[in-house]
Amino acid sequence: MLNGEKLIRRPLRWGMVGGGRTGQVGYKHRTGALRDNTAYRLVCGAFDIDPARGKDFGVNIGVDADRCYADYKTLIAGEAKRADGVEVVTVATPNFTHYEITRACLEAGLHVICEKPLFFTVKECREIEELAARKGLVVGVTYGFTGHPLVHQMAAMVKKGILGDIRIVDLEYTHGFNSGDDVGASEAVKWRTNPKTAGPTFVLGDIGTHLYYLSEIVLPHLKIEKLLCDRNAFISTRAPLEDHATVLMHYDNGARGRLWVSSVDAGNMGSQRYRFVGSKASVSWSDAHPDQLIYEIQGEPPQILHHGMPYLEKESLACDRMGALHTEGLGDSWSNIYLWIAEAIDARNRGDEAFLKTHHYPGIAAGTEGVRWLENCVRSADAGSVWVDFQ
Amino acid sequence: MLNGEKLIRRPLRWGMVGGGRTGQVGYKHRTGALRDNTAYRLVCGAFDIDPARGKDFGVNIGVDADRCYADYKTLIAGEAKRADGVEVVTVATPNFTHYEITRACLEAGLHVICEKPLFFTVKECREIEELAARKGLVVGVTYGFTGHPLVHQMAAMVKKGILGDIRIVDLEYTHGFNSGDDVGASEAVKWRTNPKTAGPTFVLGDIGTHLYYLSEIVLPHLKIEKLLCDRNAFISTRAPLEDHATVLMHYDNGARGRLWVSSVDAGNMGSQRYRFVGSKASVSWSDAHPDQLIYEIQGEPPQILHHGMPYLEKESLACDRMGALHTEGLGDSWSNIYLWIAEAIDARNRGDEAFLKTHHYPGIAAGTEGVRWLENCVRSADAGSVWVDFQ
Amino acid sequence: MLNGEKLIRRPLRWGMVGGGRTGQVGYKHRTGALRDNTAYRLVCGAFDIDPARGKDFGVNIGVDADRCYADYKTLIAGEAKRADGVEVVTVATPNFTHYEITRACLEAGLHVICEKPLFFTVKECREIEELAARKGLVVGVTYGFTGHPLVHQMAAMVKKGILGDIRIVDLEYTHGFNSGDDVGASEAVKWRTNPKTAGPTFVLGDIGTHLYYLSEIVLPHLKIEKLLCDRNAFISTRAPLEDHATVLMHYDNGARGRLWVSSVDAGNMGSQRYRFVGSKASVSWSDAHPDQLIYEIQGEPPQILHHGMPYLEKESLACDRMGALHTEGLGDSWSNIYLWIAEAIDARNRGDEAFLKTHHYPGIAAGTEGVRWLENCVRSADAGSVWVDFQ
Amino acid sequence: MLNGEKLIRRPLRWGMVGGGRTGQVGYKHRTGALRDNTAYRLVCGAFDIDPARGKDFGVNIGVDADRCYADYKTLIAGEAKRADGVEVVTVATPNFTHYEITRACLEAGLHVICEKPLFFTVKECREIEELAARKGLVVGVTYGFTGHPLVHQMAAMVKKGILGDIRIVDLEYTHGFNSGDDVGASEAVKWRTNPKTAGPTFVLGDIGTHLYYLSEIVLPHLKIEKLLCDRNAFISTRAPLEDHATVLMHYDNGARGRLWVSSVDAGNMGSQRYRFVGSKASVSWSDAHPDQLIYEIQGEPPQILHHGMPYLEKESLACDRMGALHTEGLGDSWSNIYLWIAEAIDARNRGDEAFLKTHHYPGIAAGTEGVRWLENCVRSADAGSVWVDFQ
Repeated sequence: MLNGEKLIRRPLRWGMVGGGRTGQVGYKHRTGALRDNTAYRLVCGAFDIDPARGKDFGVNIGVDADRCYADYKTLIAGEAKRADGVEVVTVATPNFTHYEITRACLEAGLHVICEKPLFFTVKECREIEELAARKGLVVGVTYGFTGHPLVHQMAAMVKKGILGDIRIVDLEYTHGFNSGDDVGASEAVKWRTNPKTAGPTFVLGDIGTHLYYLSEIVLPHLKIEKLLCDRNAFISTRAPLEDHATVLMHYDNGARGRLWVSSVDAGNMGSQRYRFVGSKASVSWSDAHPDQLIYEIQGEPPQILHHGMPYLEKESLACDRMGALHTEGLGDSWSNIYLWIAEAIDARNRGDEAFLKTHHYPGIAAGTEGVRWLENCVRSADAGSVWVDFQ
Repeated sequence: MLNGEKLIRRPLRWGMVGGGRTGQVGYKHRTGALRDNTAYRLVCGAFDIDPARGKDFGVNIGVDADRCYADYKTLIAGEAKRADGVEVVTVATPNFTHYEITRACLEAGLHVICEKPLFFTVKECREIEELAARKGLVVGVTYGFTGHPLVHQMAAMVKKGILGDIRIVDLEYTHGFNSGDDVGASEAVKWRTNPKTAGPTFVLGDIGTHLYYLSEIVLPHLKIEKLLCDRNAFISTRAPLEDHATVLMHYDNGARGRLWVSSVDAGNMGSQRYRFVGSKASVSWSDAHPDQLIYEIQGEPPQILHHGMPYLEKESLACDRMGALHTEGLGDSWSNIYLWIAEAIDARNRGDEAFLKTHHYPGIAAGTEGVRWLENCVRSADAGSVWVDFQ
Repeated sequence: MLNGEKLIRRPLRWGMVGGGRTGQVGYKHRTGALRDNTAYRLVCGAFDIDPARGKDFGVNIGVDADRCYADYKTLIAGEAKRADGVEVVTVATPNFTHYEITRACLEAGLHVICEKPLFFTVKECREIEELAARKGLVVGVTYGFTGHPLVHQMAAMVKKGILGDIRIVDLEYTHGFNSGDDVGASEAVKWRTNPKTAGPTFVLGDIGTHLYYLSEIVLPHLKIEKLLCDRNAFISTRAPLEDHATVLMHYDNGARGRLWVSSVDAGNMGSQRYRFVGSKASVSWSDAHPDQLIYEIQGEPPQILHHGMPYLEKESLACDRMGALHTEGLGDSWSNIYLWIAEAIDARNRGDEAFLKTHHYPGIAAGTEGVRWLENCVRSADAGSVWVDFQ
Repeated sequence: MLNGEKLIRRPLRWGMVGGGRTGQVGYKHRTGALRDNTAYRLVCGAFDIDPARGKDFGVNIGVDADRCYADYKTLIAGEAKRADGVEVVTVATPNFTHYEITRACLEAGLHVICEKPLFFTVKECREIEELAARKGLVVGVTYGFTGHPLVHQMAAMVKKGILGDIRIVDLEYTHGFNSGDDVGASEAVKWRTNPKTAGPTFVLGDIGTHLYYLSEIVLPHLKIEKLLCDRNAFISTRAPLEDHATVLMHYDNGARGRLWVSSVDAGNMGSQRYRFVGSKASVSWSDAHPDQLIYEIQGEPPQILHHGMPYLEKESLACDRMGALHTEGLGDSWSNIYLWIAEAIDARNRGDEAFLKTHHYPGIAAGTEGVRWLENCVRSADAGSVWVDFQ
């Protein structure tokens, strides 16, 4: 179990671009990073597109006024002058800015933690991957749900062969918050439904990449051979982006997958639902009730595994924080993600290749894979929702 | 509410082909037909492929020994000689015999109630449809789940526009009882996995037609424009039939549907799950908890509608039997189905066209539609899981 | 599994007193008795306090008009004249008439099946017990919920010691249908809240006896040593009867029990909930989801046992009707209860003492025990909700 | 919603007594206090009964080595010498030390945050209450579950009269982790089952006080008139303390309450369950699924209220952190509790009586009330589980 004791030498000096008072996701980043004060220390930020509001906010969360910057460029420049300047920067801004901010930070020698979907194209991902490698820097991607302990229980069970051969992958992340039209919509909705600011997808990138990344955690040995994506916009002003999509996937071992994302699933408050079916048993998990894992063995009574219990695999217990009987929430999950990224950064800084070889965290490869998957989805959908080989 | 009081003039004289001691479905038919003794009276049967066992069984459930026949042909012949001969015959035999038994019964002037999937081809359906019409006889199809009161609550809510425009149809019927191979399998599994006895599909016909018919009940105004079926056999000896399939459907109003059937969903005991999503709200129902209907209004708290409660639509209350707080099971649902078919037969016998025009029951049209849907699925799947126009 | 094949020599000739068109419970009795036509045949009835309505109703459910009687006295007299007269009579009338009708039937040589709570006093019970024994007749009591297969799974698991020593018994049957006052209440509510017609209790007798009897089934080896009953009427016009009560019980093995009944538990649609806790594990069951039994082993993942599955105890599988994946409802449970009573009657008629010695059904002893428990509850409550030795 | 922006002038200088590496609850305190770095800053601690281990631990969580003390006395003395000395101390040690440490801190002019149950006797509580008042200091009590947003939704609904008159209070906190005997038990179990270190109760104080305090939050207008406590030790070595207890309560408005606590409820992982029933509707909540509140209106469909949704009362939305669709865990709840206590301390430091008059937090009065309730429970139980007037 984690109890806040330090796992790296000292807290990293951390800054944020975006994530200010009007955004919702910023607080999840801070909750994740600052949980124990042993992984990160928030030293600066360009929190808001409105610099005055950004400074007011930054001061309110404890940042020195003179380290609350107007934008990412001045942040990079300002911090570069300091002996105690920022070391790692989180990018929590609309999609279309991820690439340029990440690039600039890396070029300035800063590690980066970026929101998903990472960039617009795999080409951009490869460039950044190369740049980060050259600079010896880490790029983390905040797939915030995969820090839940029972996600890693699923992965460990699959790895041990407890489910048998994997046959069925069923992934859902649907809600109904965009069931109505976008007249009077929030800024968050506006930029997400505009290809210029969101990139080539809406719900596939916004929520589908969470499903896909989690499935990679659980099924690292499975590769998609071909997929078919059927996407559409029930609210026509969102086209060519989609507010609803189904993706069918054929894996290299013969398994069949289906992924459903929607923001017009009226009334659904059930968050994400994951089901992995093997030849012997299945596991199901949802972020709506993250403390329980449904484990169904064919011919036996289904079991409900509870987080933090000694019967779980060590990989799951290792990242438990609250202990059995007490709920772990999304904040706890983000704390794990940020911690794992911090460990990667520290190892990179120390040049500890051995550690990095086995250490798991959502890095640039995971971000790139998400964008690659999106490109395949769009290629299929735009060709008439046909099967395409996964490239 | 239903309380067993007669809704037709007198109980119909009823017989069964199949459904004997070794079958599982026979008891569901008898539970349905004989519930109140005011709709049917069991007078004869050819219950078993083993005539002696069939007679022993028939006598044990109260049928006169001399009306326990060796097969359907002798049943038809024997009963034809009696003044009080059978009027309606249930066909609860393997799929490949449905057509010939139904045809023979109709030609002998008997109404028929047949298991699903009705026949192998739409062509056969059309022939039987024509024959039944010519003879003035009813053919009922035992879609046994659609008698549940809350199914009709969903239909009434959709009809009143409570959900808004229908956008998403999500249908699942999966279990894992065929997760292992078929070595040593029961007769029931053997004939279902053999195209000669099962017809062109396994799980699509065996369980998928339940999903499809129920969706027709709830969405009578929606038509499929095109569909794509991706089917496969995880246990290779079942090929060319499938133990797993996903069907994507585009409806004429722009709605998107997905149907999942599987008999290798290891450990899943959740029965069927239905979700209908409109522009304003959604409803979800499962036979696993048939007494509750999840009604989710976007932006409001989800509600759990309970069967038998006065706030429900009259169509639902009309077919409730147990009353609120008390569970209705599958037997109650079958009782409703059989009752509605009895009312159709009685009306047909009386020549009451006005009644028949508005009376709802699973008849030959429903059975034909199921077979038509299967044909489209197979056509898509066999062409490489491609989109096909619904014909 | 049960499939309707006869378990007794021939169906018993059965009649009903009460249970007509305006009552709700009558249909549950008929559903139970007539399920398979191999245990009972309905031949007569005095269905209604309004004889004309009763006759109309009786004819509508298939009873000969001349065997639809005005009241129980004429029924007994009329049937006595027939060679094919009634053999067993169900009493489904308000509580205050149970004793006199049961007595009259027994004196006329008829078996009786009676609603709960059986009579007003243990003294009455003992008289009837003695009378039935002298006449060689059966008195069954319709504790309708205890026919569910998973109830008998719980009993079998306790018997095998799977739970360890029983420590905690937690029983609840609460609803909110009487949350408002009784102005304009139905007849059913009126007689239940009047001591003259209901007897010494309202909810304790009306729903609490179900809880208590089921606990006896599961824990036949435990005896109450003392109890404390705290009852009250939130709607004052119901006093001295109660619409809410809690009973604490100390068992002879040291176990502690608590039983909660209420008809003012506003909004609760959860039916009954049972929990039996042992030193090693617990089982929980509710009629709201009767197909699943929660089995919680300390230190292991909770399991959800599903009815009809081969891993269950033979006692549970023996009374399954629908099979796994398909819901058993309350009607199925009543069918079992009525069947077990029929077997007892047939055995009594045959003089088969060996069978009766091991055969389990809710008989006069169970009915008497329920009344005894009520007497102890009232004694405690009326003395100021104090502990009383169980007498 | 809360997003970490400061609500007090500057973070309080905070220290801990207890809560080191081997304790489980310490991390919950730190998670609560340090969540946003805008309410507390951890400056010192006497974390462990083993000073070396305590110092190692303190350094590991970022405390200066010279402010890691051997015990609370040296902490108080050491910090007193500093200009930037600690201002508020958390007491997370076994029960028997609460009183002396709290007293010493207060006498040294330090605010205190103490684990529950606060002290052994009401007399001690009154002394501390008087001392704190005289010194102008705050004593907070960590009832950590009551920070969940939906707890405050329940309170707001009751206050607005949405449930009608409160009639039934049903409170449960049971688990089975002490189902076996205590041979080889952890230190945490040992001191909790020994009256010298635990005080006059085991589960009543350890988990029952959580139930009782939460019920006070929801029902501030209800007072207990009399209660009856039935407690026992299924594992005899725990006597005279209890591992199982039921408390019946009569409130001054006529409502009836029942509270059940147990650590031998084998297999139960359901955490706490709360149900408040009014004349019109009920609400139910559990920490096991803290994001949903069941709201059951008599005669209408039950509703599931989801945290963070705009339809909730402002009191609930005010303390939401994660937003709808994303789970709030116990850590979020503790963060709220610690924040509210910080606001009280800041207001006390500023002498802001107006703020304190309306500000809600678990303070000394709540702690005292918990101990008072325990005293009444013990008095009842020790007199033979009889009714006692609440004193």
